[in-house]
Amino acid sequence: MDSRLPVKLPPKRHTLIRSTVAGDARRPGAQGPTGAFTDLETPATEATPARLIDELRERVGAAKVSQREDDIAVHSTDKWYASHPPDVVVFAENTDDVVAVMAFAHEYGVPVTTRGAGVGYVGGCVPLKGGIALSLARMNRILEVNAADGVAVVQAGVITGDLQAAAREVGWDYPPDPASLKECSIGGNIATNAGGPRCLKYGVTRNYILGLEVVLADGRVLKCGGRVHKNKTGFDLVGLFTGSEGMLGIVTTAVVRLIPRPPARAMLAAVFPEFATAAAAVQGILNSGHLPSALEITDGFTLAAARKRLGADRLPDGNAHLIVEVDGRPRAVASEIEELEELLGKLGAARIDRAETEEACEGIWQLRREFSYSLRDTGLTKLNEDIVVPRSKLVELVEFARQLERETGISVACFGHAGDGNIHTNLMVADYDDPATRKKANGALDRLFTWVLDHGGAITGEHGVGMAKKPWIHQALGATGLEVHRALKEAMDPGDTLNPGKFLD
Amino acid sequence: MDSRLPVKLPPKRHTLIRSTVAGDARRPGAQGPTGAFTDLETPATEATPARLIDELRERVGAAKVSQREDDIAVHSTDKWYASHPPDVVVFAENTDDVVAVMAFAHEYGVPVTTRGAGVGYVGGCVPLKGGIALSLARMNRILEVNAADGVAVVQAGVITGDLQAAAREVGWDYPPDPASLKECSIGGNIATNAGGPRCLKYGVTRNYILGLEVVLADGRVLKCGGRVHKNKTGFDLVGLFTGSEGMLGIVTTAVVRLIPRPPARAMLAAVFPEFATAAAAVQGILNSGHLPSALEITDGFTLAAARKRLGADRLPDGNAHLIVEVDGRPRAVASEIEELEELLGKLGAARIDRAETEEACEGIWQLRREFSYSLRDTGLTKLNEDIVVPRSKLVELVEFARQLERETGISVACFGHAGDGNIHTNLMVADYDDPATRKKANGALDRLFTWVLDHGGAITGEHGVGMAKKPWIHQALGATGLEVHRALKEAMDPGDTLNPGKFLD
Repeated sequence: MDSRLPVKLPPKRHTLIRSTVAGDARRPGAQGPTGAFTDLETPATEATPARLIDELRERVGAAKVSQREDDIAVHSTDKWYASHPPDVVVFAENTDDVVAVMAFAHEYGVPVTTRGAGVGYVGGCVPLKGGIALSLARMNRILEVNAADGVAVVQAGVITGDLQAAAREVGWDYPPDPASLKECSIGGNIATNAGGPRCLKYGVTRNYILGLEVVLADGRVLKCGGRVHKNKTGFDLVGLFTGSEGMLGIVTTAVVRLIPRPPARAMLAAVFPEFATAAAAVQGILNSGHLPSALEITDGFTLAAARKRLGADRLPDGNAHLIVEVDGRPRAVASEIEELEELLGKLGAARIDRAETEEACEGIWQLRREFSYSLRDTGLTKLNEDIVVPRSKLVELVEFARQLERETGISVACFGHAGDGNIHTNLMVADYDDPATRKKANGALDRLFTWVLDHGGAITGEHGVGMAKKPWIHQALGATGLEVHRALKEAMDPGDTLNPGKFLD
Repeated sequence: MDSRLPVKLPPKRHTLIRSTVAGDARRPGAQGPTGAFTDLETPATEATPARLIDELRERVGAAKVSQREDDIAVHSTDKWYASHPPDVVVFAENTDDVVAVMAFAHEYGVPVTTRGAGVGYVGGCVPLKGGIALSLARMNRILEVNAADGVAVVQAGVITGDLQAAAREVGWDYPPDPASLKECSIGGNIATNAGGPRCLKYGVTRNYILGLEVVLADGRVLKCGGRVHKNKTGFDLVGLFTGSEGMLGIVTTAVVRLIPRPPARAMLAAVFPEFATAAAAVQGILNSGHLPSALEITDGFTLAAARKRLGADRLPDGNAHLIVEVDGRPRAVASEIEELEELLGKLGAARIDRAETEEACEGIWQLRREFSYSLRDTGLTKLNEDIVVPRSKLVELVEFARQLERETGISVACFGHAGDGNIHTNLMVADYDDPATRKKANGALDRLFTWVLDHGGAITGEHGVGMAKKPWIHQALGATGLEVHRALKEAMDPGDTLNPGKFLD
């Protein structure tokens, strides 16, 4: 993923940064002038910062604290453009470590930016104010998979694909399926309330989080929710932390809901002459009472690129491609896929491929992944925006994308989760390092987001706000929305210790 | 519903109560000594209170403001035991009215307790501190049902059953199905994050709320979420307000998610010799990869009562009853119900009735409702507790209920949503007005909730905390959980204007 958008950053610091902390910044919750260790290009010689780092080492154990250049570099960035080094990296191994870090950070007013697998797309875990990059990657234990209760208990650093595999081993399933499934962590999924194709039928990450252990900004440990599938005890704290991008607390452990694994699935891959016909087919499928597990649409630009990569026999002529997946009992799936094939024919599909085995289904998902690679083949820089529109606006969105293309000269590739209107809209930019191009690209993004908001859409469906969408957050939330966000942030993290510098600053 | 638990209330006031508001209580957000209009048994003669009520009339319109004795009486209570009169009732007809009420309440420090249809089971809308009972019952317009976007837009006072009917008229569905569907309002469902039998497959109210218009404690209007099916723009404010029992803001309008209506359903009703066998069948069904739309279990005590009412031919001998509903495409449903019937036979069902038409399915749901009526036939007072246990603890819960029965002499009837462990556990109390009986019943409830919490359960799955569960909220949330709740409440409603006196006081 090489989505890039320039954001004004403090000057990049390449050396290990040490700190001076003013006396009054040592009050609980207080912060030094730059929010943390003072921004010095040369290592400080004062006793204070060295003592502080030493104290951190003492508190959590030296083996878990690193200022090695490679660790600092890795923890400076995610899959997005922005980069800023932390002053120090802590590799937490358990909740006590996280508590120790937060107690320390709270006491000295040091920023803490939590990080899971670091594969976010919006700069969410870039430690923009320096301080501590708190990695939960070592907290990767699956503590329990319990079919009798329909739950799994996992540490935040567990890779989502590993959780899914563990659930499937006992015949159950963890449905959310972000594209980065095999490398992202459940903690990161919780921070961004991650989605994926199957969320059309099964819902996003939030729908699968039953309970959380959270370390609060001052080091208190909160347990909220639990291992039951329904719970109305108080406010929805589990929901508040899910999607809060590390700004309200640090999730250390999660109880997730599992579902009985649907024993069968089948898929259709259809090519349509026009995008509008494919979008109408999406409506036709849903209006006929079908709720597929996935409904993925791809536009003509992407298909043209894919045709170059894959050959015309796998992708015949047509300006839109639609993937339909259904799952359930084997006999049910067999009869439903037949109905759907007939329906797609009536709805104008020019060619339909049917997949009824696991292998054939994987083949279609592989084709879908090839669409992404095809865009990469173009050599252009892909600005991947996970915007969402009301489903009735799919055709208008693609028409707007074409207009944007004509008016800016920047190609726009649209593909994604048609069923829920979450269309990845990719601005394909040549020579992104050229300032003029970049300016034009940013202008195009601004037009895109403004159009989306004007049409009842959302600027992010599953990636989060982070730094990438920050320029549009005011427009998206409105003044009152922002005020409420700030009031909640102040209530949970009055010292602005947790992931500072992000969308509320 | 006659669930009753005594709670220490301020002395009941039977007359229209007028207020005196001290000068310093007029600061924005401040409150008088009793939280509102001072508690006087005789109408006050001072100019201030009359002027305040007059001002309220002026601000929202006299036709919407009532101090009539019958209005006061109706708005003093819900389906639970507790009662406390408001000083005045306001019937809001639109968001502007709600804004006007909250601006007034904020200015003068007057408590506001919002009310939908008033059919809650936990005293949640009892205006415990007097002040204004704000009825949203007149805000009952379905503003939009939009199949193309898969949403409906409704005012908070819309009856949930009306919303469901409107969705079904266009071939779509609103799945949450609380038992009080035909009389409860969507606003009340949002306040309590209501559930129902079909929530096993389809999820609770929260899973269907996409966007909210909320009037905040100081009268600001917040719009959060929207009409898109996926949205990661900022924190999950929609989730925070959903289930917040009127304590964080007043929901005036909601955008709800609709799903394509499953065109068919079928059901099985099975009698088992023992509860443990039926509970094992629940696990067996889920472990075989079935995800029914409902899985309802009923214990021996309830069945015995039902047998008296319905006759032994409809309910042959057996200590447990299980209802299984599946829905989907007609052919899929037909084949799945066959599989399930075979499975239930293998899992020890003594008798299985199959329903494959709408009428036959409704017959089974009617039978299920008869179970409730049968308990009423006993002449005992039913203390209906919507506790939840991890699904593996179903048998232990019923064994504990039997033990409680033996040790207290109070019969315990268990039935409910077996699939998600949300079992309505009803203490059947004779002569509830007798103080000694009441004390014993409260002792039994205390043992029940303590057992549930000790076994990883929750004290409420779908009714909410309100006043009924307040005595156990500390135990349920823990000290840190309560602190976080209070911090959020303080952030959103610093003057404690919204529904004061409830579980955080």
